[in-house]
Amino acid sequence: MSERHWLHTDVGGAGADSITVRGRDLATELMGRVTFTELTFLLVRGREPTPQETALLDAVLVSLAEHGLTPTVLAARLTHTGAPESLQGAVAAGLLGAGSVFLGVVEDTAVFLDAVVAGCGDDGLEAAAAEAVRARTGAGGRIPGLGHPVHKAGDPRTERIYAIAREHGLEGPHLRALELVAAAHRQATGKALPINGAGVAGAALADLGFPARIVRGMALLARTAGLVAHLDEEMARGLGMALFRDVERGARI
Amino acid sequence: MSERHWLHTDVGGAGADSITVRGRDLATELMGRVTFTELTFLLVRGREPTPQETALLDAVLVSLAEHGLTPTVLAARLTHTGAPESLQGAVAAGLLGAGSVFLGVVEDTAVFLDAVVAGCGDDGLEAAAAEAVRARTGAGGRIPGLGHPVHKAGDPRTERIYAIAREHGLEGPHLRALELVAAAHRQATGKALPINGAGVAGAALADLGFPARIVRGMALLARTAGLVAHLDEEMARGLGMALFRDVERGARI
Amino acid sequence: MSERHWLHTDVGGAGADSITVRGRDLATELMGRVTFTELTFLLVRGREPTPQETALLDAVLVSLAEHGLTPTVLAARLTHTGAPESLQGAVAAGLLGAGSVFLGVVEDTAVFLDAVVAGCGDDGLEAAAAEAVRARTGAGGRIPGLGHPVHKAGDPRTERIYAIAREHGLEGPHLRALELVAAAHRQATGKALPINGAGVAGAALADLGFPARIVRGMALLARTAGLVAHLDEEMARGLGMALFRDVERGARI
Amino acid sequence: MSERHWLHTDVGGAGADSITVRGRDLATELMGRVTFTELTFLLVRGREPTPQETALLDAVLVSLAEHGLTPTVLAARLTHTGAPESLQGAVAAGLLGAGSVFLGVVEDTAVFLDAVVAGCGDDGLEAAAAEAVRARTGAGGRIPGLGHPVHKAGDPRTERIYAIAREHGLEGPHLRALELVAAAHRQATGKALPINGAGVAGAALADLGFPARIVRGMALLARTAGLVAHLDEEMARGLGMALFRDVERGARI
Repeated sequence: MSERHWLHTDVGGAGADSITVRGRDLATELMGRVTFTELTFLLVRGREPTPQETALLDAVLVSLAEHGLTPTVLAARLTHTGAPESLQGAVAAGLLGAGSVFLGVVEDTAVFLDAVVAGCGDDGLEAAAAEAVRARTGAGGRIPGLGHPVHKAGDPRTERIYAIAREHGLEGPHLRALELVAAAHRQATGKALPINGAGVAGAALADLGFPARIVRGMALLARTAGLVAHLDEEMARGLGMALFRDVERGARI
Repeated sequence: MSERHWLHTDVGGAGADSITVRGRDLATELMGRVTFTELTFLLVRGREPTPQETALLDAVLVSLAEHGLTPTVLAARLTHTGAPESLQGAVAAGLLGAGSVFLGVVEDTAVFLDAVVAGCGDDGLEAAAAEAVRARTGAGGRIPGLGHPVHKAGDPRTERIYAIAREHGLEGPHLRALELVAAAHRQATGKALPINGAGVAGAALADLGFPARIVRGMALLARTAGLVAHLDEEMARGLGMALFRDVERGARI
Repeated sequence: MSERHWLHTDVGGAGADSITVRGRDLATELMGRVTFTELTFLLVRGREPTPQETALLDAVLVSLAEHGLTPTVLAARLTHTGAPESLQGAVAAGLLGAGSVFLGVVEDTAVFLDAVVAGCGDDGLEAAAAEAVRARTGAGGRIPGLGHPVHKAGDPRTERIYAIAREHGLEGPHLRALELVAAAHRQATGKALPINGAGVAGAALADLGFPARIVRGMALLARTAGLVAHLDEEMARGLGMALFRDVERGARI
Repeated sequence: MSERHWLHTDVGGAGADSITVRGRDLATELMGRVTFTELTFLLVRGREPTPQETALLDAVLVSLAEHGLTPTVLAARLTHTGAPESLQGAVAAGLLGAGSVFLGVVEDTAVFLDAVVAGCGDDGLEAAAAEAVRARTGAGGRIPGLGHPVHKAGDPRTERIYAIAREHGLEGPHLRALELVAAAHRQATGKALPINGAGVAGAALADLGFPARIVRGMALLARTAGLVAHLDEEMARGLGMALFRDVERGARI
């Protein structure tokens, strides 16, 4: 069946005797040897991370996993209310809302910073950041990664990601560019918008070598952990049905 | 708004200055201090794991993450073919197939073993396992966690999970009961069905204290990592469209 | 490629010059000739409906399409709040909650009534209904299709479906059995539970010849129309974000 | 609870004695009186359609419902393979792929034509169409609604929709503009791309008064009928598992 070479995948495969992930034997080379975070890096990037890279990726995933009763968590819980037989359906419903408004910022920031750092060394970064801010705000656009509806004074996650990246020698061009972008925006508009948690996550993932196209996927992975925890609580003590009844009362005016 | 106490969640929350996860400050107490696996344990179980528990949970998540071009991976890739603008939609489609046939075994095994270990000490485990096998097979049912369509001689993941659990002193009643169940089944039927990877994962998660109702959620988390890797590859080199064209040719008979 | 005969489908196909649905040419034999309801019947049943069958199917679909701000509608709207770029994601999230608790009743009733009518003529229907009620309530189970949390005195849709079915000579064994089941339940328990709208829909779909396995699918189709209308309104005037903010205030106790 | 006026919806609601859809009593004013297509028009547009509008909407829905073993149908069937317990999950997976590549054309065409017809009477339509084609092709963009990978000589659905619209006096500015756009594209590029079935559906829905933002929703509704039929066949005779095994063989090179 060589004419179906397009069916080949480098990610993994299963035979009668072994399971292979990125060319490694799952049972003997990965289980008990790598953490789930290291496996995720290996799965997506195709190579195992250094301990420093693992530390930063762990911090990013931890920062994105849980944010309380967000719209996506409410959607997941309300889905479970109607279909308790399908945990995967409730998790999927929760992920479906992880789009452009919330988690999309992680991706948008990576895309924006990719353009800033492309083709300029460290020396040119400040000018490139200022120019990118000018072009985007001039066109009436918002700078992705800046500002937050709730954490107005500063997102508590931002400083921590920077500190952890520095500690491990992993503050790369994207993280540096994001700070320069925030400074340029302040100078250009007079408004000091803090770097938000989604933005700093996008920059850190880009510096970890994840293509911009997939950084939203890392955020989806992180949020899945939070969704699973909310659904476990929902099974023990449901708030979906109570929320529905409360809405029903409110809608009957 | 005390009349809306039902809106309370113990999982997490976000205020203007801080984000809280299971009562801990996300930025200062968790980021940089716990791994993503440890955070997941904390999110669902409500307490931080011991290093031994983390090692076993990591091994379980690693064992479940990736299995090649499964039906769910194909569904995710085909969904991306039609809707590349929505990565979350492709991941969600992939999770929706993680139901009773494949990942459900993780949950079914935990539920079955919960009934075996309930109300019997270590001494009674062998008799309880034999009785449970007799009741299930007598009713024409299959024993969850035994047998595999591909890994007929033995699932390579099973032995590793047992070894890791023993190494860390975490082989609990569910893992022990599963071996006794496999032995009782062999004795009762004369057929030696190996313990499969989903079954041993369910037993290990139950011994880690996860309620049976949520073990499928841990499998969904693990599979999300594999789906994200497949979708990254799909964006670089799509096989969804080629698969569709190939099916189209085959269907035109 | 005769070795891939398993790829054959009877539902439909597309060639370079024509699209075929159930063996009919879409453009010349169906468009402009059949209604969407008639096409749906043809798609699932494999033959075109009589005018009487169309009338009853229309009434059933109309009865199931919209029920206000249900949990599934809220999930769809909250999903749109986070991912406005993906209308299909919001619709999918809405459908995911159409499970065992609400729409599942349509299927459960069809399955229950299938067992009642199986192997008994019209003469034996009353006895079979009484026996099925006895067996189910004796085992502590609930009778699907009876009772409603809101419409306690009687679901306004039930009487209408029966009237329309009679008007068109389509009150078949399932609809008759459902009335006998309700009467038997009243006699056995002393509690008069009305037949609910989901139950009568399941019975009518079964009498229209839809296999029990797919009647939930007809309910999903009907609900899609309601979801699309709610999402159009959500795009014009969003309540998802307001609901999230309201929950946020309530959760901060 | 007047402070929660934002919970109000005009779509529908359920009280103890009645269900209301767009201000009409469901049981007495809609069931048995309107078809499912008429109800859908009422749900989204807020008023009942004329018989002519119903005929055109039926034709559009019929034209979009089924197209064989498309990527979305395969995704739905493969999802059912892994999770047969959740019909709604398989339907949802099928809808998730109805994105920008296939069904999105319906929306893209409506958006494009909205800009063409905006602020120009019938006299100016030809010039506006030519200008819009010039601007889009000049910027290297493709014209939505033109061309088809399979139906190269002409989509069989296009002519039918035009004929049905004319027959009912409903060929409005969008349908007229689409023909002018196709002609202008032919003149500008020398390539005769036929109007495709998704494009003509988008134009017809726009002429029926559906806002461009929701025309994709009508396509999702139509496709749900096709998905339900495929899943019914999948339950009777599954091809998902066979497709997976076939892919597995092909991937093992």
